[in-house]
Amino acid sequence: MKEEVRERAKKVRLLILDVDGVLTDGTIILDGDRGEWKVFHVRDGTGIKMLLEAGIEVALFSGRSSRVVERRAKELGVGHVYQGLRDKVAPYEVLKGLLGLKDEEVCFVGDDILDIPLLQRVGFPIVVADGVEEAKDFALYVTRRRGGRGAVREVCALILRAQGKWRGWDF
Amino acid sequence: MKEEVRERAKKVRLLILDVDGVLTDGTIILDGDRGEWKVFHVRDGTGIKMLLEAGIEVALFSGRSSRVVERRAKELGVGHVYQGLRDKVAPYEVLKGLLGLKDEEVCFVGDDILDIPLLQRVGFPIVVADGVEEAKDFALYVTRRRGGRGAVREVCALILRAQGKWRGWDF
Amino acid sequence: MKEEVRERAKKVRLLILDVDGVLTDGTIILDGDRGEWKVFHVRDGTGIKMLLEAGIEVALFSGRSSRVVERRAKELGVGHVYQGLRDKVAPYEVLKGLLGLKDEEVCFVGDDILDIPLLQRVGFPIVVADGVEEAKDFALYVTRRRGGRGAVREVCALILRAQGKWRGWDF
Amino acid sequence: MKEEVRERAKKVRLLILDVDGVLTDGTIILDGDRGEWKVFHVRDGTGIKMLLEAGIEVALFSGRSSRVVERRAKELGVGHVYQGLRDKVAPYEVLKGLLGLKDEEVCFVGDDILDIPLLQRVGFPIVVADGVEEAKDFALYVTRRRGGRGAVREVCALILRAQGKWRGWDF
Repeated sequence: MKEEVRERAKKVRLLILDVDGVLTDGTIILDGDRGEWKVFHVRDGTGIKMLLEAGIEVALFSGRSSRVVERRAKELGVGHVYQGLRDKVAPYEVLKGLLGLKDEEVCFVGDDILDIPLLQRVGFPIVVADGVEEAKDFALYVTRRRGGRGAVREVCALILRAQGKWRGWDF
Repeated sequence: MKEEVRERAKKVRLLILDVDGVLTDGTIILDGDRGEWKVFHVRDGTGIKMLLEAGIEVALFSGRSSRVVERRAKELGVGHVYQGLRDKVAPYEVLKGLLGLKDEEVCFVGDDILDIPLLQRVGFPIVVADGVEEAKDFALYVTRRRGGRGAVREVCALILRAQGKWRGWDF
Repeated sequence: MKEEVRERAKKVRLLILDVDGVLTDGTIILDGDRGEWKVFHVRDGTGIKMLLEAGIEVALFSGRSSRVVERRAKELGVGHVYQGLRDKVAPYEVLKGLLGLKDEEVCFVGDDILDIPLLQRVGFPIVVADGVEEAKDFALYVTRRRGGRGAVREVCALILRAQGKWRGWDF
Repeated sequence: MKEEVRERAKKVRLLILDVDGVLTDGTIILDGDRGEWKVFHVRDGTGIKMLLEAGIEVALFSGRSSRVVERRAKELGVGHVYQGLRDKVAPYEVLKGLLGLKDEEVCFVGDDILDIPLLQRVGFPIVVADGVEEAKDFALYVTRRRGGRGAVREVCALILRAQGKWRGWDF
C-alpha cells in the first residue's frame, strides 16, 4: 500500500458507496412487468459487515431508485441509504453534518462521471477497476477488483488494515 | 480517435441500437413459464441519457420482441422502438423519412449478420467487440467494450466528444 | 479449417446439442420455490435457425429435465427434444433410426464426461471450449467460444460453410 | 498432482462445501420483495453426484440462510445442510461425531476469512481460485477453477482420482 493511500485510509470514519456498478456489477436485470433484480456479491457484504463492526459508518448513494437497495442495506445493517440522486453532493453535505464529520474523514467509491463532483469533495476518492477513465482521473485509488466482484471488499480491507483494525480476522 | 471516425461521428443526429447483444450482453434468460429477462448495464443507460440531453435522437431496433425492451426504452426516454424485425432496412427508411435525415446522419450499432444490410446503409456503422467477424467487416468502428458491458456507452461518448458536446460532463 | 474437420462437417445432416453447458453457459439459477432459469445466447439461437433453414435437423439432448428447454426449443423451431437422460446413446439410436441417418451424418456437441459415450459414436464429435478435459480427448473439434456464449453458433457456421450453404448470409 | 495433495485426498470420507462463493459464484441476486436467487453450475453438480455414488459423504455449510440451498441439496442428494453459520467449527464437530470421522478424513472448501478456523481444523483444506488471499494462506490446495464455475467439480475429480474411484467414468 502506498503511503498516501494509507494516510487517507487511516482517517476514514464514513464510507459512501455508489450502488449500480460499485456495490453491484452494473447490470440492470429487468422482466416485462415491474420486476428488477440486482447482482451483489457475498464477499462485498462480508467486508461491509466487518467495517460496521469496527465502528466505521457506511452509506449507500444511488443514482437510480429501487427497493432492492433498501433490502440489501437492511440485510447488511447499513442505515444510511439515499436513492434517486442525480446530485450526490447535497445529500453528502447533509450526512456529513448529521455525523459531525470533515471531508477528510470520508471515503467515496464511484464508477462514473456523475460521481466526479463527490469524488472531488471527499478526502479519500476511489473508483472501481471497471469504472470510466474520466472518473479514475479523480481517484486517489483504483481498485483491483471490479464493481460487484470484490471491489467493495477490497476497499473495506484496505481501510481496516490502515487503521490497524484488521486483527480480529487474522488467525 | 482516427480522423475518419471523428468525421463520421460529427454528423450523427440519430443513433440506432440493436438490442440483444448490443444494448444487452446477448443472454436470453428464460423460466419455464412465460417470463423473459434481459441484462442491461447502468453505464450504457447513462450514455443514452447524455446523448438525448444533447439533442441526438436514439432508436432501438430489435430482431426479437419483448416487453422488457419497451420498459427499458421508457426508462431511458427513448421514443423510437421497433421490435420483431427480421429486416431492419425497411423501418430504417421509415424512421429516416419521419425525422428528415440523410444516411450520413445515422449511426447504427449491431453485432450479427442480420445487421449487415443496415450497417451497409448508414453513414457510421459500428459493431460491438464481441460481435461476429462477418459483421465487423462492414463496420467503420469496432467498440473496445462488449455488448451490454459498456459498448453503447463508449459509442455515446465518442459521438458527444466528436461533436464538442461532452463539456457538460467534464469537471 | 482443417481438412478432416471440413470433411466431417460436410456430411452432417443432424446436429445434436447437449443443453446445460453447451446451449447454456452451465449455470443453474434457482430460487427458493420451484423456479428455474436458464441462460441462452441470442447468437446461438440465430445459428440454429440458419441451420434449420438450410435443411439440417437439430435435436436437444439434456441430462436434466426442465420446461425451460421445451420453451427455448419451441422458440427456435427445434422439434427433437429429449430430456432427463443419463444415457444419451439409446435415444440417439432411436432418433437416428427415425430420421434414417448413419453415424457419420451426425454431429454431437457436449461438455462433460457423461457425453463421452455419444461423442464416441457420432461421426463429428465436438466439445465446447470450457468443457472438461476428459471429454475433449474424444472430440474432433473443440470450439473457440464457450458454451452458452457462442459455441453453438460457431458450430452452425462451421457446418454451413463446409457444406457451401453459408452464401444466403454473405452480403 | 503433488504427492502431499494426493495423500490428503486419499483419506477423504467427507467433503464439506461452503455455499456462497464456493458452490455458487458468490453473487447474491435479489429482487425488491423477498426473492433470492443463486447461481450454481451443472458440472459442479455432476461432480457431487459422482462423489456420493462413490460412497463419500458431502455436506453444505452456509454462512447465510436460504431455501435455495436446501433445494439444490435435495436435487443433488446431499443430506447434511447447515445454514446461518457464523461459526463453522461447532457444527463441524457435531457432524464429525455423527459420522464417526477423524479430522484427517475431512476436506473443506472455503473462499473467505470466516472459513479460516475450519480450514485450520480439517485434514484437507482447499480454497477456490477467486477466494481471498488470507484464506489461501491456510489452504493445502487452491483450485484452478473459480467458485460456482467448476471449482467443486475439480475437487470431486481430484478426490476420486486419488482414491482410484474415477474408473467408472473413464471410457
